[in-house]
Amino acid sequence: MNDDDSDLLESDPILNDSTWDLVHQILGSLDELRVEPVDYDGPGLILDFGVDAPGSLAAGLALAEVCTAGLADISIVPGEMGGLGWPQLFVQSDDPVEACLFSQYAGWQIAVGEYFAMGSGPMRAAANKEELFEKLGYNEEAFGVVGVLESGQLPTAEAVEEIASSCNVDPDQVALLVAPTASIAGNMQVIARSVETSLHKLLELGFDVGRIESACGSAPISPVAKDDLTGIGLTNDAILYGGRVTLWVNGDDDSIREIGPEVPSSASPIYGKPFLEIFEAADRDFYKIDPNLFSPAEILIHNVQTGSAFHFGGIDHSVLKKSFGLE
Amino acid sequence: MNDDDSDLLESDPILNDSTWDLVHQILGSLDELRVEPVDYDGPGLILDFGVDAPGSLAAGLALAEVCTAGLADISIVPGEMGGLGWPQLFVQSDDPVEACLFSQYAGWQIAVGEYFAMGSGPMRAAANKEELFEKLGYNEEAFGVVGVLESGQLPTAEAVEEIASSCNVDPDQVALLVAPTASIAGNMQVIARSVETSLHKLLELGFDVGRIESACGSAPISPVAKDDLTGIGLTNDAILYGGRVTLWVNGDDDSIREIGPEVPSSASPIYGKPFLEIFEAADRDFYKIDPNLFSPAEILIHNVQTGSAFHFGGIDHSVLKKSFGLE
Amino acid sequence: MNDDDSDLLESDPILNDSTWDLVHQILGSLDELRVEPVDYDGPGLILDFGVDAPGSLAAGLALAEVCTAGLADISIVPGEMGGLGWPQLFVQSDDPVEACLFSQYAGWQIAVGEYFAMGSGPMRAAANKEELFEKLGYNEEAFGVVGVLESGQLPTAEAVEEIASSCNVDPDQVALLVAPTASIAGNMQVIARSVETSLHKLLELGFDVGRIESACGSAPISPVAKDDLTGIGLTNDAILYGGRVTLWVNGDDDSIREIGPEVPSSASPIYGKPFLEIFEAADRDFYKIDPNLFSPAEILIHNVQTGSAFHFGGIDHSVLKKSFGLE
Repeated sequence: MNDDDSDLLESDPILNDSTWDLVHQILGSLDELRVEPVDYDGPGLILDFGVDAPGSLAAGLALAEVCTAGLADISIVPGEMGGLGWPQLFVQSDDPVEACLFSQYAGWQIAVGEYFAMGSGPMRAAANKEELFEKLGYNEEAFGVVGVLESGQLPTAEAVEEIASSCNVDPDQVALLVAPTASIAGNMQVIARSVETSLHKLLELGFDVGRIESACGSAPISPVAKDDLTGIGLTNDAILYGGRVTLWVNGDDDSIREIGPEVPSSASPIYGKPFLEIFEAADRDFYKIDPNLFSPAEILIHNVQTGSAFHFGGIDHSVLKKSFGLE
Repeated sequence: MNDDDSDLLESDPILNDSTWDLVHQILGSLDELRVEPVDYDGPGLILDFGVDAPGSLAAGLALAEVCTAGLADISIVPGEMGGLGWPQLFVQSDDPVEACLFSQYAGWQIAVGEYFAMGSGPMRAAANKEELFEKLGYNEEAFGVVGVLESGQLPTAEAVEEIASSCNVDPDQVALLVAPTASIAGNMQVIARSVETSLHKLLELGFDVGRIESACGSAPISPVAKDDLTGIGLTNDAILYGGRVTLWVNGDDDSIREIGPEVPSSASPIYGKPFLEIFEAADRDFYKIDPNLFSPAEILIHNVQTGSAFHFGGIDHSVLKKSFGLE
Repeated sequence: MNDDDSDLLESDPILNDSTWDLVHQILGSLDELRVEPVDYDGPGLILDFGVDAPGSLAAGLALAEVCTAGLADISIVPGEMGGLGWPQLFVQSDDPVEACLFSQYAGWQIAVGEYFAMGSGPMRAAANKEELFEKLGYNEEAFGVVGVLESGQLPTAEAVEEIASSCNVDPDQVALLVAPTASIAGNMQVIARSVETSLHKLLELGFDVGRIESACGSAPISPVAKDDLTGIGLTNDAILYGGRVTLWVNGDDDSIREIGPEVPSSASPIYGKPFLEIFEAADRDFYKIDPNLFSPAEILIHNVQTGSAFHFGGIDHSVLKKSFGLE
């Protein structure tokens, strides 16, 4: 952990603990959210937000809030997309590093036997498997953990046990919220990643993310896809071509001036086509895609120390309309 | 009730019961809302939201929430109308059929002696007088009922007794919230009907509304009229020319492709003029007006099973400006 | 107090008392808000929202709500500024005179020894020093008072004692929330003044503000300045060139038709340049600047009695972009 990031630990946020409170609230509203507890022969608590359960808009908001360990406010707001009325998902946080990097970023690929899921949520901070935790000097010793699985399948007992083992908790102390990309709630939890993608990109570009004090962002609510592959395309497009992020940072202007132009998705040479086309051209292999593509279309950075405002990128509704099948 | 609609009864929502909770919250905030309990020689609870009481924006939001049996979130958001800053009313629901058709739709014309009101709210589900309840297989046996009366007059004891009798409840178990169209709160409760009008139109067009899982919508907050006739004109225009609705539905695409173009208000040949002109041309008789006119200007339908997005219609700010007296 | 304003006292709002409740809520969320209680050798409670403490977006919203004595709802919403994604601050109130004139208006210049601050919040109603309280017939006899200080310095014990004395309370019964203009929270509390500036301008123009029943307004969140002088420029520009206000008023149309065109900032001959340039040209003396400049860019007035809607002024994103350093 470098000195600049020392404030990250300051308020000692036990992300998993506070997220359990959210899980308890969800348990009190299952019918309303159209979320179903999974009855299976295995340990832990599994909540189905969209595999067999229908889910709902409210379930999507709840799922996205669990992803951010309850450290972001997330809401649906009316908006426009190229002159059409089009609702947007709005995210706001005063703890963007904790909410987005320590929790929301889907950095844990869970592959246990036949089971596969993209894992996010505060369990990642307890598993402490990813380089970013070492880089940013954060991890949690938790009694119980909460995770979100982006997957078309409900986890197996084996997968739950593997997650528990990685997090050093008892398998009964694991709560997993599951939704496919191609579900109402699963769709929304991805679109809620406008701020997260900007932070992750900044981290990758070498920017000291400990400087980011607050953030907000929006992205259009893309159609709920018929299958997860298409869903990955639509939700990525919502961020890449429709995501708008504002960050409040401290520190110097020069580093922002230098790195800023690289932040929006348009900084990537492969920017400009619906993501699914890009994905197919890369043989459906994320690792063959230019990592610089993954960020919001537009970013506004306020330096709260110098008063400078920097704006980079811009939204592109024509690609969105094409992606969303509206042409 | 047909099989496709079986999910409508699934969570067994006792709309009147849950709405009583909202009424109790309102009773705890009367001063703040500028709402007045009516002191009269008759049974039941009557709350004046705008007949003699001034009402407020918060009263309008509370009234609209009672209309939807508490199953929709309703808020004021900033927006634009043809380049002018113009606040909008935003509605969001995961139970749009229950919220809008079983409760919010003003389908009960209450005419008792001299008294007349357009009745909405969950009492309609207990009265079970309208064809739509049979069509959709829903009604409630309630101990007490809550209704909203759009009327320039406070109800008479006779009217309350008639409502109680229709709902099979004791007259003292009736709560009625009253506001004229031409009042701050009454105006808002009508403008909160963007989603409702789209659902009712779909129902009339033969679409299986049981397929609609979630919805949101917005409309500009029209001026508070000087009299109820003008108010009917202004609030209808807010929806017909400024209403934007998004629906998340399941099922097939073909039915949406076929019915969709008929949904927006522009599908009616009489679309294009302020509603008051249309109403006057029809000798102020709603039943002489093409029923296809009554729907939002613009509708976006997401099929959550196929991933298809369909967009129909569009807003027309020039008619709104003319209607609102801004030309 | 004239008769027209008699409703202002009607609900007898003890602004300071209810604001103490907000202060207690803030005391329960200090870490989350990044607000610090000041440990000093003097009486009263001093909360640092941005002098030495970093503050946050949530702290800015809380500070703005204290400014309005809790009588306004304040939120961050996504928006646009000349095609750029740009978050806005939205304010909504059913008690705009109490919220904005009796509390939020920064009408108390606190100058005690070396200490200087612009004072706002409900303490002003207890101090009862300003002409507007006499004009509008309102003041409070409070047991304790809450004030907001826009200042780069924490108050001295002498300043706290002077405030207590002015408000006729014990110095230990004073709570002061302090933030410089050039801080995240301080910046937001100024930008939350879109409605307030319209009401103050109307009062100055001789309009009977007791007619204003409800209000809402928005303004772009300007950059957090590097120093307070620059901050005064940026936040004023947010209101003068980006502020949009809607008022719901009663009474006659003629007075609105007559006074309305004078309300937006563009009514001032010095309108059109970034405020800092205007301020410098006036030798940094507020009193040399045309007071008609201080109001939002755009105003929409609904007369709830006549149904008339009046629109005056308009936003100017090009001045904002110049002011915010985006050209």
